Amino acid sequence: MTLPTPLTGVVPPVCTPLTPDREVDVASLRRLVDHLTAAGVDGLFVLGSTSEAAYLTDGQRRLVTETVAGHVAGRLPVLAGVIDMTTPRVLDHVASVTAAGADAVVVTAPFYTRTHPAEIARHFRLVAERSPVPVIAYDIPVAVHTKLPADLVLALAADGVLAGLKDSSGDLAGFREVVTGSRGLTGFSALTGSELTVDSALALGADGAVPGLANVDPDGYVRLDRLCRTGDWDRARAEQERLCGLFRMTGVGDPVRMGGSSAGLGAFKAALHLRGVIDCPATAEPQVPLSQEETECVAKYLAGAGLM
Amino acid sequence: MTLPTPLTGVVPPVCTPLTPDREVDVASLRRLVDHLTAAGVDGLFVLGSTSEAAYLTDGQRRLVTETVAGHVAGRLPVLAGVIDMTTPRVLDHVASVTAAGADAVVVTAPFYTRTHPAEIARHFRLVAERSPVPVIAYDIPVAVHTKLPADLVLALAADGVLAGLKDSSGDLAGFREVVTGSRGLTGFSALTGSELTVDSALALGADGAVPGLANVDPDGYVRLDRLCRTGDWDRARAEQERLCGLFRMTGVGDPVRMGGSSAGLGAFKAALHLRGVIDCPATAEPQVPLSQEETECVAKYLAGAGLM
Amino acid sequence: MTLPTPLTGVVPPVCTPLTPDREVDVASLRRLVDHLTAAGVDGLFVLGSTSEAAYLTDGQRRLVTETVAGHVAGRLPVLAGVIDMTTPRVLDHVASVTAAGADAVVVTAPFYTRTHPAEIARHFRLVAERSPVPVIAYDIPVAVHTKLPADLVLALAADGVLAGLKDSSGDLAGFREVVTGSRGLTGFSALTGSELTVDSALALGADGAVPGLANVDPDGYVRLDRLCRTGDWDRARAEQERLCGLFRMTGVGDPVRMGGSSAGLGAFKAALHLRGVIDCPATAEPQVPLSQEETECVAKYLAGAGLM
Amino acid sequence: MTLPTPLTGVVPPVCTPLTPDREVDVASLRRLVDHLTAAGVDGLFVLGSTSEAAYLTDGQRRLVTETVAGHVAGRLPVLAGVIDMTTPRVLDHVASVTAAGADAVVVTAPFYTRTHPAEIARHFRLVAERSPVPVIAYDIPVAVHTKLPADLVLALAADGVLAGLKDSSGDLAGFREVVTGSRGLTGFSALTGSELTVDSALALGADGAVPGLANVDPDGYVRLDRLCRTGDWDRARAEQERLCGLFRMTGVGDPVRMGGSSAGLGAFKAALHLRGVIDCPATAEPQVPLSQEETECVAKYLAGAGLM
Repeated sequence: MTLPTPLTGVVPPVCTPLTPDREVDVASLRRLVDHLTAAGVDGLFVLGSTSEAAYLTDGQRRLVTETVAGHVAGRLPVLAGVIDMTTPRVLDHVASVTAAGADAVVVTAPFYTRTHPAEIARHFRLVAERSPVPVIAYDIPVAVHTKLPADLVLALAADGVLAGLKDSSGDLAGFREVVTGSRGLTGFSALTGSELTVDSALALGADGAVPGLANVDPDGYVRLDRLCRTGDWDRARAEQERLCGLFRMTGVGDPVRMGGSSAGLGAFKAALHLRGVIDCPATAEPQVPLSQEETECVAKYLAGAGLM
Repeated sequence: MTLPTPLTGVVPPVCTPLTPDREVDVASLRRLVDHLTAAGVDGLFVLGSTSEAAYLTDGQRRLVTETVAGHVAGRLPVLAGVIDMTTPRVLDHVASVTAAGADAVVVTAPFYTRTHPAEIARHFRLVAERSPVPVIAYDIPVAVHTKLPADLVLALAADGVLAGLKDSSGDLAGFREVVTGSRGLTGFSALTGSELTVDSALALGADGAVPGLANVDPDGYVRLDRLCRTGDWDRARAEQERLCGLFRMTGVGDPVRMGGSSAGLGAFKAALHLRGVIDCPATAEPQVPLSQEETECVAKYLAGAGLM
Repeated sequence: MTLPTPLTGVVPPVCTPLTPDREVDVASLRRLVDHLTAAGVDGLFVLGSTSEAAYLTDGQRRLVTETVAGHVAGRLPVLAGVIDMTTPRVLDHVASVTAAGADAVVVTAPFYTRTHPAEIARHFRLVAERSPVPVIAYDIPVAVHTKLPADLVLALAADGVLAGLKDSSGDLAGFREVVTGSRGLTGFSALTGSELTVDSALALGADGAVPGLANVDPDGYVRLDRLCRTGDWDRARAEQERLCGLFRMTGVGDPVRMGGSSAGLGAFKAALHLRGVIDCPATAEPQVPLSQEETECVAKYLAGAGLM
Repeated sequence: MTLPTPLTGVVPPVCTPLTPDREVDVASLRRLVDHLTAAGVDGLFVLGSTSEAAYLTDGQRRLVTETVAGHVAGRLPVLAGVIDMTTPRVLDHVASVTAAGADAVVVTAPFYTRTHPAEIARHFRLVAERSPVPVIAYDIPVAVHTKLPADLVLALAADGVLAGLKDSSGDLAGFREVVTGSRGLTGFSALTGSELTVDSALALGADGAVPGLANVDPDGYVRLDRLCRTGDWDRARAEQERLCGLFRMTGVGDPVRMGGSSAGLGAFKAALHLRGVIDCPATAEPQVPLSQEETECVAKYLAGAGLM
């Protein structure tokens, strides 16, 4: 399907359920998609950071995109991450995910290499030139160690290179610059990647949100989005604060024993497993699994939020 | 061939010559291998950072390894980088490069994801378990944004997980800790990735060096290595200082116009082109090419070093 | 005077006008205070980062505090920064500014040294124990290279160690955690240090704002604060966006020629000079002054905002 | 006394012994100076990072300089750190330490503020202009979060602004560029601040070393320096490796409980206390003290090195 212009609402970055052997669990993935669509989300983003794209082999990435695009069957737009280090490698992923049915690709700045704004611009231009579907920039400095400058994003948007931005930088002021600067540009969607300031982002003009926690509580984020759209800011704030409380589950993993990805993605998958959506909470290697005790903490967060 | 224990001497990270269309230039790659082996290097490292591994597609990576391993035909050990974000993706590269003839694989810490020492250890253990050839750790914080702790490297070495370390961290004190701590371990090779302190590294006990600049002046690095081995430290220092002067070519690229990878790799390839070793100085996308003027500066450095 | 609990509204971090010889220009400082109080601000913050506290000698710091506290004469609360590396040095500043009339002190995490959450907590506890006035934590990672963790701030707030937080981290999600977590604590004020997301911060429950740009346009920030308090979010957003546009003056300084402090503080002082508030736009050494051309750009921003 | 040109040999950064009340322990400080001079060191550096300069009040700093300069009485050159954020504050310290008898001042790049190479150059030029004694640049990115570029240091050296460099960056390649680039410049001293690569630094041409661990084992570093000067590189390496082993005492502090400064300076002071040089091992606030158990580990390192 054609990407809506702009793309609005809630577009969860879809977790990738794995089997105990760390293969893609297709049945669970379909159930997760059903869980999200039933809540009324507005699109799906596969192969993002929350999807453990960095941990999936090329074969697994293809299978994920085919599964989701096939299962959704055009009812919702499917965005696909094409996360890799540089232009030639990203272009291979573009070919793969678009063959598998993706309606847009989500592209980070180059990483691993020492990059530069001029190279970042060149990267996006080359990818857009050769991509059959629209390109959305993915600003995620915690992963790629470069912040996309707002003026660069706006220049590329004005030239028609970028169809949107997913901002996972945590820098709301920079995001605001893109939101206000792109206001006249039809066909550009400004999406926040935050779980915790969706109300703030929508209030200042963002088109939508891509919150990882929406895997766990898609109804909450859909509700939050609708409250913001109707200008019911007090109830929106209350809903957002409830979701902020739920998000604290990402802190149950012991930082002496594991890193932030293991803790955060482990909590999301534990919650999906506890809620009965996926069969197995395993995260990809080399992530450290949550302990039994940590998983019980996740359960308490779910119970506290009325989700169990 | 079996990896020598320890691997000593000069092991250049082999540049990947490209055609103007950014395909692997197989004929130039073979000539570059001949240029290096004629100088008496002790091994070859393909698909490292200097090889633009981050920019090569999987197909190109395979072609590079096949070409070099085939051309070398067992006369020298061929190490291959398997640079990717996490364990499952690295394992795919391990399968590919070992099928293509690599004698060892060179593995970084996970990147893009937020990692942790426990996850890094798990990563190396899993890769080593499933790799048919020895695993050498690649410490390159400028690229992966994590420094491999010396005690972690030594623990993995003691367990037989790691067969060596290529240290491109620039932290000589940390490298020294690995060198002295691994002294009793047969089968562990400590290699410096520096161009500029090879004499220092060998003086404190390193087994060998993997200097990118050895593409341009392999004779210089072989000479330096031999002077160090015979304890002729004064002449070694003079040779090293000459090479430090030559290395300044990596600074000719204008930092307002390009990043450090473009400038450094651009200079190496310009030099190889000017010296007649490769047909085309192109670097991979999205790197910014050197200007004509900048290329002339590279020529001056070569002339100054008696290499033209 | 006693610090209001909570402290609400607009509390500008007062610029420190200098003479061409880089001495404190007392007359201009008094005029600047009048300019701010006339606009209806709710407090004044001297010796913050915007005040160039890092550049002022101890004698100059004392003179600034005495001048402002004396001129305000209890009509408004005066907060004073006590910016220094560690506890003993900060305590000397606490003694100095409280003798000079400050109603509260604003304290960063230790810097220059390699610090730790346990040491940061100990630092705030010791300073609070020995300070005759309330202590407000100053979260400014761009300067001190440590982020104050929300749970540490909340624990210190619960213990009565901290009377507030000035958050200049740019991390709205972390700030929100402090705002919601401290909601029950009378006597704790959560203040944003952002110029660009004051509406967002107030919407999620912040007590007030400490925006450097309020030196240039105090009326705008007071208006913005009042619109937010009355829940007129649409007009608040429009006012905030106007101020975001004005803030772009901090980008007129050429980044090839100067750093961010020179550019930002230079623009604020140029604007105050152009508006006739201060006699001389000089910034402290070793900052690089704006050029004539860059100053003209500042004038254009002022004209565009109807401030000239 | 006039600073030797160049300044060579071992110049320990002198620890600042404190009483249990965290006042300067003058008697212990004199004993520490005697301990160092008896070992044959070539100069003393007070108010450096190892001296806890960041933790000392201005009064304490003055007392330290007066005590050491008075006690040394011209037998050795006394260098004094003037560590502060910017030019005006540094100049106040320059006045204070030179009045107290310092023979040279040691100056970092500006910190806390966002700085720039042009501002760093301006800073050093202004300080040198107004300092009655020579200025040595102090490159310590771990503290000030900026690396001094080698070409900037060399340009300032060529202009007579800088009389030397103390390099605590850990970047031996960058230090080498300064060493070789300044070879023709009489009156410029290149000093390494490393404890762990003194032999490497001297081998490539450094004039001397400023190792914090020399407080604990000054004889070892003097021996190391003499071995390097006579070209006895094998025995120098053995001595250096012994000192590297001793340096591991800086790792006894539990990183879950304290930061790197607490652990490192705590170990040095515990060792000086255990060796009977100083009366009390206290470090300044807000550092976390070593536990009894951690102190016993320090004792074991001393015993292992034959120092108890």
